[in-house]
Amino acid sequence: MRWEPGAPERLQKAALELFATRGYEQTTATEIAQSVGLTERTFFRHFTDKREVLFHGQQLLRQAFLDGVAAAPPDASPLETVASAVRSAASFFPGERRQHSRARQSVIDKNPALQEREVHKLASIAATLAGALRARGADELAASLAAESGITVFGISFAHWIREGEERSLADIATDVFRELRTLTAD
Amino acid sequence: MRWEPGAPERLQKAALELFATRGYEQTTATEIAQSVGLTERTFFRHFTDKREVLFHGQQLLRQAFLDGVAAAPPDASPLETVASAVRSAASFFPGERRQHSRARQSVIDKNPALQEREVHKLASIAATLAGALRARGADELAASLAAESGITVFGISFAHWIREGEERSLADIATDVFRELRTLTAD
Repeated sequence: MRWEPGAPERLQKAALELFATRGYEQTTATEIAQSVGLTERTFFRHFTDKREVLFHGQQLLRQAFLDGVAAAPPDASPLETVASAVRSAASFFPGERRQHSRARQSVIDKNPALQEREVHKLASIAATLAGALRARGADELAASLAAESGITVFGISFAHWIREGEERSLADIATDVFRELRTLTAD
Repeated sequence: MRWEPGAPERLQKAALELFATRGYEQTTATEIAQSVGLTERTFFRHFTDKREVLFHGQQLLRQAFLDGVAAAPPDASPLETVASAVRSAASFFPGERRQHSRARQSVIDKNPALQEREVHKLASIAATLAGALRARGADELAASLAAESGITVFGISFAHWIREGEERSLADIATDVFRELRTLTAD
């Protein structure tokens, strides 16, 4: 059943604009819905609250990480497997998405509640990733450490990717950050 | 001015008990205050809301990390400096605090809003730590990676430390986890 094709995406775009112009606190779910000609009821059919609108896509991102785990050779080390997961997640953010990601981040940076939700999203993906590594035979500690290190690399790479003037792809940045991690822990 | 010596600590203890027995959602700030003979007004003089009660002590923990950075030799690498910070933070959790930490964690584990706040606390400390590493001359990327890796090690070590039956000190666990991180990133 598709009542409104694309409604979540339209709501997300509208929310981002309203949060950016009016402020997150000052914007209601009803206003977001009305700004794109949808009802409050439709809004709440897709999202539990206005905060969740900015996190639409989280499950697709999680799946992108998991696809990258599955794509790693069976004999890959936990860190190599995680690097494959990060490359796969990076392909989720092509260059044409950079401007959107930048706008979303600047809204998040202004709101502690959104920052909390964002770090929790990444922590939750790290937990999923650790589970996938354990399923491939990594022991518990190695799985947690590799998964969290991968999410650290992803988070730092993403922050670089959305900087003004940055032109490298997210995957290329992540490769550099992984290299720096190896250098750093060898010291 | 100390209106009620020890009021924050009493409120924290009371909140933990009420959250554990009645549930976080079902407990109000007023009930927490009343259970230790304090007023709602006193509660809100110390905390902005009931969630914050569980995060009393965050600034002291942040300071413990910073003290560990300051205690590292000037020529320590970013990762060695962070290891010093984690050892210092670990001393903030002596064995006699384990039971309290365990009770607090089991309340947090049941509540997404508390989990978000907890990961945000650690992310915020990682940002502080990165700033302290930059101030010692680390470049930006090395500082971020080392700081976040240190917080990852701390978080994983802490989760082990509060397990039932675990008897090693937090500092000893952290030493083992740092060793595993070095092994993992060398693979």
